[in-house]
Amino acid sequence: MPEAVFDRSEYERRIARTKEQLRERGLDAVFVTDPANMNYLTGYDGWSFYVHQGVVVTPDRDEPVWIGRQMDANGARATTTLAEESIRPYSDDHVHSPYDLHPMDFVAEVLEDLGLDEGRIGLEMDAYYFTAKSYTRLQQNLPEATFDDTTLLVNWLRVKKSDREIEYMRQAARISENAMQAGLDTIAEGVPEYEAAEAIYSALIEGTGEYGGDYPAIVPLMPSGDHTGTPHLTWTDRPFEDGDPVIIELSGCRHRYHSPLARTTFVGDPPEEVQETADIVVAGMEAALDAVEPGVTCEAVEKAWRDEIAKHDVEKEDRIGYSMGLGYPPDWGEHTASLRPGDETVLEENMTFHTIPGLWFDDFGVELSETFRVTSTGAEPLADFPRRLFTA
Amino acid sequence: MPEAVFDRSEYERRIARTKEQLRERGLDAVFVTDPANMNYLTGYDGWSFYVHQGVVVTPDRDEPVWIGRQMDANGARATTTLAEESIRPYSDDHVHSPYDLHPMDFVAEVLEDLGLDEGRIGLEMDAYYFTAKSYTRLQQNLPEATFDDTTLLVNWLRVKKSDREIEYMRQAARISENAMQAGLDTIAEGVPEYEAAEAIYSALIEGTGEYGGDYPAIVPLMPSGDHTGTPHLTWTDRPFEDGDPVIIELSGCRHRYHSPLARTTFVGDPPEEVQETADIVVAGMEAALDAVEPGVTCEAVEKAWRDEIAKHDVEKEDRIGYSMGLGYPPDWGEHTASLRPGDETVLEENMTFHTIPGLWFDDFGVELSETFRVTSTGAEPLADFPRRLFTA
Repeated sequence: MPEAVFDRSEYERRIARTKEQLRERGLDAVFVTDPANMNYLTGYDGWSFYVHQGVVVTPDRDEPVWIGRQMDANGARATTTLAEESIRPYSDDHVHSPYDLHPMDFVAEVLEDLGLDEGRIGLEMDAYYFTAKSYTRLQQNLPEATFDDTTLLVNWLRVKKSDREIEYMRQAARISENAMQAGLDTIAEGVPEYEAAEAIYSALIEGTGEYGGDYPAIVPLMPSGDHTGTPHLTWTDRPFEDGDPVIIELSGCRHRYHSPLARTTFVGDPPEEVQETADIVVAGMEAALDAVEPGVTCEAVEKAWRDEIAKHDVEKEDRIGYSMGLGYPPDWGEHTASLRPGDETVLEENMTFHTIPGLWFDDFGVELSETFRVTSTGAEPLADFPRRLFTA
Repeated sequence: MPEAVFDRSEYERRIARTKEQLRERGLDAVFVTDPANMNYLTGYDGWSFYVHQGVVVTPDRDEPVWIGRQMDANGARATTTLAEESIRPYSDDHVHSPYDLHPMDFVAEVLEDLGLDEGRIGLEMDAYYFTAKSYTRLQQNLPEATFDDTTLLVNWLRVKKSDREIEYMRQAARISENAMQAGLDTIAEGVPEYEAAEAIYSALIEGTGEYGGDYPAIVPLMPSGDHTGTPHLTWTDRPFEDGDPVIIELSGCRHRYHSPLARTTFVGDPPEEVQETADIVVAGMEAALDAVEPGVTCEAVEKAWRDEIAKHDVEKEDRIGYSMGLGYPPDWGEHTASLRPGDETVLEENMTFHTIPGLWFDDFGVELSETFRVTSTGAEPLADFPRRLFTA
């Protein structure tokens, strides 16, 4: 391991909390396949989630059992402290197999070996990479087992961050600031979109001089021109044109922890309505941040934004943020608490959110985001970057 | 749409071939969720696969129906030529919903609306992003429908490339060459791994000067030192050390088409055994490429590699390559034909493979790859990059 990402005791706490959940729910095991959850429980890291893999946690076993492809077992040895008997690799003929072999056949054998063939097993039914076929093959192979949906069981444990996690998110925020500045410095009339993407990517990986950056779970997004209303388009060869609004959303990443940041810039002189919209978004953001403190609900934070923009005669009811931190492609979000109407999750110290409100009209949109930590008294934005409309 | 990625007629051919498959299999529809397959059939492009989405193809409808999140409908309008009635967005309260709403509830409504509630519907049961929950929710919502597993139905249609697809893969190969050179130029004793990653990433996005590059479906991988046997580790802050073997695997990307390339470099003077291993890998690669021609099976190509390395007393039976091209994270492979024992797929002109053989020993590994097109008489490697062990 190049460096200890977390002390062993931190993984032990995470595993203990998972076991507590198993006992509360009467489960004999949980099979965790979300790569972020696998990392959270064991430290396992690698671009191997394009094949089936997972870790099994049982109430009475000290550490999880890692199951993955043969060639990734060395990755498990390199990035985790799991004992050799807790690393259970399947052979390569299970991969995209023409032999009617599926990795879940092997997983079923391991579960059986752990005495779980008649057990009650939690599955992350709606997690990325846990396919429909994974489920039906497990059912076929373990006809006496009972399966429960535990999709967000580990995700909810991740909501409150430790000091070390916060430290990595702060490091990621430094990278986000550099990358945002690089993007803003590059965007200009006539410059192709990919050049701005290159400048941003370069800064995301180059890091700060003290440390480098990981690949982010979501690539830099920069909808521009009349595409600011299409938030998930990526860059093209198109040159920026005078009159283009451009939204930049990006995140630095450190040991898989993110700190996303979004700003809007305008190529040329922004029309008054664009500037006014930006001012409303900034005011709304600040109202939302002001509303944050332990004991307040997620929906109350959204309401603060909504009330503020209503003063400017803008009505919009939307999700304006979500809990996040550790992540792998395709997402850095945790899929747990959201800042939106109806979400009654109560804020606690060291929860972390990406709040990303925006206003879109027919021909332009303005977006601005902050990643913040809930402190004992309020919100601490992790990045230090001016909150305004930029011009290019 | 910034530029026409493919003529409309090319999409029409792809859809016609899909419909032919539906008729052959007695299916009333296929629900396609693999983002690469969605793109293949409609041109739809965007970083939106972190929420549930898909396209439905039926035998009698001219064009597919796109289903996705409300905020991505504009992306569908921007990147496809689908008519407005073929774009069916679901509201945002379906996303990571605390209201027991699931996007598949909406998908089921659309399928019902298309008259498919008692139909036989193909599902990509083992595709990325089609979760177990997606399947069980569709079952619950459409109790009278019958579901078939059509995981690789569209993938197999993608195996033979059109001239335009080959053109994009050639463009990607130019980018891969630049990025490989940038990586090799940067790696040196004392340079942290992330700096090499930055140089590679920068070249991947900067492109060639004529055109930029897309984000690749897999990040640049560069296992080094005693980690060359852990192929899916990503970079860290560790500085390269004298005596490190470093494997670089990367791919340029153009309009989502890839052309992967791998080479091995050595920091300092390579020991004789490393150089000898590299020579064997190069000889094996060339034997494999020489074996390629239309009419030959995939397994015969692997056998040519295996026979060549056996001459040097190395025995290894492995998958040494796979069909690829269009792709989104987490993979650029198509999961169809593989160059491995038992794969009797017969090569045809304009199939494209990434062949990536390697040899690993206790303390080092050597890997070398080429992306090639099957021509009328042999193999055409798409990149032009020296096949040898490099030194840094």
